Amino acid sequence: MIAPISKISIVRVDGGAATTDEAIVVAEEPLEIRLGYGPLDDRREMRLSVTMRTPGQDAELATGFLFTEGIITGMDQLLRIDHCENVKEEERGNVVRAELHPSVEMDLEKLKRNFYTSSSCGVCGKSSIEAVHVQCRRGLVPFGPVDPEVIAGLPDRMREAQTLFKHTGGIHAAALFNHAGKMLLMCEDVGRHNAVDKVIGALLSTIRTNPDGSPGQLPTNNCQLLVSGRAGFELVQKCVVAGIPLMAAVGAPSSLAVQLAKESGLTLIGFLRGERFNIYSGGMAATEATAVPPNGR
Amino acid sequence: MIAPISKISIVRVDGGAATTDEAIVVAEEPLEIRLGYGPLDDRREMRLSVTMRTPGQDAELATGFLFTEGIITGMDQLLRIDHCENVKEEERGNVVRAELHPSVEMDLEKLKRNFYTSSSCGVCGKSSIEAVHVQCRRGLVPFGPVDPEVIAGLPDRMREAQTLFKHTGGIHAAALFNHAGKMLLMCEDVGRHNAVDKVIGALLSTIRTNPDGSPGQLPTNNCQLLVSGRAGFELVQKCVVAGIPLMAAVGAPSSLAVQLAKESGLTLIGFLRGERFNIYSGGMAATEATAVPPNGR
Repeated sequence: MIAPISKISIVRVDGGAATTDEAIVVAEEPLEIRLGYGPLDDRREMRLSVTMRTPGQDAELATGFLFTEGIITGMDQLLRIDHCENVKEEERGNVVRAELHPSVEMDLEKLKRNFYTSSSCGVCGKSSIEAVHVQCRRGLVPFGPVDPEVIAGLPDRMREAQTLFKHTGGIHAAALFNHAGKMLLMCEDVGRHNAVDKVIGALLSTIRTNPDGSPGQLPTNNCQLLVSGRAGFELVQKCVVAGIPLMAAVGAPSSLAVQLAKESGLTLIGFLRGERFNIYSGGMAATEATAVPPNGR
Repeated sequence: MIAPISKISIVRVDGGAATTDEAIVVAEEPLEIRLGYGPLDDRREMRLSVTMRTPGQDAELATGFLFTEGIITGMDQLLRIDHCENVKEEERGNVVRAELHPSVEMDLEKLKRNFYTSSSCGVCGKSSIEAVHVQCRRGLVPFGPVDPEVIAGLPDRMREAQTLFKHTGGIHAAALFNHAGKMLLMCEDVGRHNAVDKVIGALLSTIRTNPDGSPGQLPTNNCQLLVSGRAGFELVQKCVVAGIPLMAAVGAPSSLAVQLAKESGLTLIGFLRGERFNIYSGGMAATEATAVPPNGR
């Protein structure tokens, strides 16, 4: 079983002072759910969906998913559910196969037509684990050292602009700032992913073509994005695709978000509250690396 | 344009005292993104995805989605993006069509094979708006009047059981309680939807068959589910499908969550903090309905 948490090295910043430390982050890994009938038969196997989840209780997760999505109506239609052994090494533990009662088969054909075919998913579901990693067409230009004063000022500026939050008390936001911390764009949405897509889409829409007539590029070098919630894998991925070199989150990052940030050269900040925040990838200028014992968060 | 917020009637509870009031909730509606080439041609149109979003900046949202999902690489590949007029009345404002440059077409065939086909999505993406409403096979048995003391005690009990949250400070949870508030099951996950599916799946897995040999049903009558975050449409839907008659959320509900709760007879509670909470659907016994002027939250 894949561990649901993991320990990583971070830089803790408080009032401008930085310390190296360890923190525990929650694991986020894709779980692919496959459907089949009887013994494994590649021609009749179906890749149903991939959801980004914390490992553990995978069979329960898949069972609940099949039930709440209306694919099975009870346990009499689910003959077994197990992790797949016949998968690539790197997918081991991240693929479950549900063996359905033959009576479900005909409904599945209908479901497939009405429900799955041509159904993409910006937020979670991809038809295979490989597809989770969207192709990134350009490398990130690193943000460089972060300025604690600039970072600490971002949440208040975003919150002030959040008109829908003021009314409802419950909506996510994403805001793009320039290197000095000036807010360029802010979007709100019930979905964190949507708020980020709105910011990137709004930016993209303003840059149709360059003065020389060539296709415009996102002018995101040196920009930083703040999100109101946690820093999941897919939000980091959206920043990387858009060339945004720094993402800060009010909440916690996941293991896979940190991994992607490190692989991509994105500076990732989490638990941004007042003058305190953690740096999970990237760093500050001239960090005074005073190691302290791990304290868990 | 569909308004991003709406005003509804609620019951505000504080220390056991109930008042009727008005509150503003954030709108949540499905946005379907369609792709096409040139003038509308039904044979070549593709329903790409549906995301649950707050109306507003729909073109930006769809543009950002297409870009961050790698379907377009720049605005030179997106010729226009508009709300569709040729849709059913109830879908008006919730469907956008992106007209792509012909050069994208060949890639799409590949994408469709690798990415969309057989891709379902438990969390957000459905291939058409109709598919968002999962068929519910049984009616809810109403929870009856809520007991403020029981409701106020739920969050502490869930938090105490949240081992992963204690370590990481950033993970969602869902917990099922009986009518008296005794915790039956608690699951944690980076995804709120996954936490709920894990709870429902775990419950389902314990009830394979009835003593008389007939298929087991979820024994969820009289149960109540608490979720750590906001109450979105899809979480309410999962409760309705599983026959759970009460859902309480620490955060805010969305417009569509409230609507589905009312239509289904589910008691919906939000902003549950200490002895204070709001009832958006369902009610208390002998509510002392003292109307107060609307104050926005």
